[in-house]
Amino acid sequence: MTNSALPIGIFDSGVGGITVLKEIRNRLPHEDIIYLGDTARLPYGTKSTSTVEQYAEGAAKFLLKRGIKILVVACNTASAVALKSLTERCFPVPVVGVVKPGANKAVVESDNQRHLILATEATTRELAYTKAILELEPDAVCQEIACPMFVALAEEGWGEGKIAVSVADKYLGFFKDQDHGPAPDTAILGCTHFPLLRDSISQVLGEGIKIIDSASTSAEQVVEVLREYKLKSDKTAVGRVEFLATEGVERFARVGGNFLGTQLSKDDIEVVDINLF
Amino acid sequence: MTNSALPIGIFDSGVGGITVLKEIRNRLPHEDIIYLGDTARLPYGTKSTSTVEQYAEGAAKFLLKRGIKILVVACNTASAVALKSLTERCFPVPVVGVVKPGANKAVVESDNQRHLILATEATTRELAYTKAILELEPDAVCQEIACPMFVALAEEGWGEGKIAVSVADKYLGFFKDQDHGPAPDTAILGCTHFPLLRDSISQVLGEGIKIIDSASTSAEQVVEVLREYKLKSDKTAVGRVEFLATEGVERFARVGGNFLGTQLSKDDIEVVDINLF
Repeated sequence: MTNSALPIGIFDSGVGGITVLKEIRNRLPHEDIIYLGDTARLPYGTKSTSTVEQYAEGAAKFLLKRGIKILVVACNTASAVALKSLTERCFPVPVVGVVKPGANKAVVESDNQRHLILATEATTRELAYTKAILELEPDAVCQEIACPMFVALAEEGWGEGKIAVSVADKYLGFFKDQDHGPAPDTAILGCTHFPLLRDSISQVLGEGIKIIDSASTSAEQVVEVLREYKLKSDKTAVGRVEFLATEGVERFARVGGNFLGTQLSKDDIEVVDINLF
Repeated sequence: MTNSALPIGIFDSGVGGITVLKEIRNRLPHEDIIYLGDTARLPYGTKSTSTVEQYAEGAAKFLLKRGIKILVVACNTASAVALKSLTERCFPVPVVGVVKPGANKAVVESDNQRHLILATEATTRELAYTKAILELEPDAVCQEIACPMFVALAEEGWGEGKIAVSVADKYLGFFKDQDHGPAPDTAILGCTHFPLLRDSISQVLGEGIKIIDSASTSAEQVVEVLREYKLKSDKTAVGRVEFLATEGVERFARVGGNFLGTQLSKDDIEVVDINLF
């Protein structure tokens, strides 16, 4: 069995999952966390399903060897294609992805079950959020929109301001002019980068639409699973965060710092070779 | 020895090098071309030097096995870190990169030897263009500016318009307000994606600055090397273009079509495993 004194393990293809880390820390400041960004092999979004499965399993195996009590797959692509196989392989360590918690929340919050899903090209191609919503609510109407420029804006630290709003308007402006049928009342941020553009997106979509942040809903799910499995740390734990990357510590530090909202130095990041495991 | 009836081989980490392919075809419409995009392992820019060398050598070996008469390294990162080792390994097949032809042209075109270099983060970190310019002109003054958002804009097909100009202004607007010392009179587009933003960049920099397009200067270099090595095809050659990718043909077709300026279908692209060679 797993051990409550072990850290929470978070895995992403890059730094985007730090938005999930932040939300977990907000709720569980005493928990130790290991964050692994597979920066040597990003982006996962353009890779085939079998490649993503193989990468995700390698990362999970690595974190299990280090010792973790729960695995958070803070990567939409890996959550979409590899969550089932990861759940089997990690047993008895529980696994939480980002897709299902976001879909659940959207269904609970919506009045008319019409949902807008904003994500990367790869995630929209998988229709992962649509499938998860339809499992809960077979009559729901979902519209997935690929917004790849949001990733570049978040990484550049330009999530707010004139350019971000113009880009959001180019992707989502049509929404205001739509006159066919009832409009969606929820918009899911289906990419871990997108919370950095939350205000810009909200400004374009207007007040009538609830923004569902999948980073925040996954963190809520982590709290719930730790409680259910009796895996919460006692209050003496210090809340240490370790960052691991498979390559490129300078970039990880600079871009990751934007996501974390505090400065990161490259000395804070350990380079690991996950292929050895 | 190599054979003039063989195709020109072009290699890039993704679709960006298609700007080089276009410039080569404009000058040499009769030549057959094989274009290999290592899409499974892009981006190279965030990888370590030894990884990029290893990838570039694998791609070169693959193209040599297929049979090519010249290798064009249409990838700034690979040109910056692996050109010397590729030149040795490919002998007697000549190798042309993108960095040196761009640097040469900038030095020839400049009156005051002050150069602006626009590139990705990885290329600016290598200072590859600065080093190449200083070898030719030791007193030159070079300023490298990382413009990563230009890549995302080019891939999205948004190289022109209000958003592209706003982004260019955010990166380069300072240039107009500079009042210390003489201003650069050349700007090198040091990334194969950037020709798609040429007009937007030019609009921000103003008319006093010459834009040096490294895709076009590399193509000129290819023409010269083929002439020098007596490797030009005779006029009966049909100018067939083959596209190979290591993964993601749908995306290659869509984004590559933007770069090519004509539609590409996924059936036009052959998926290859370059690790087998």
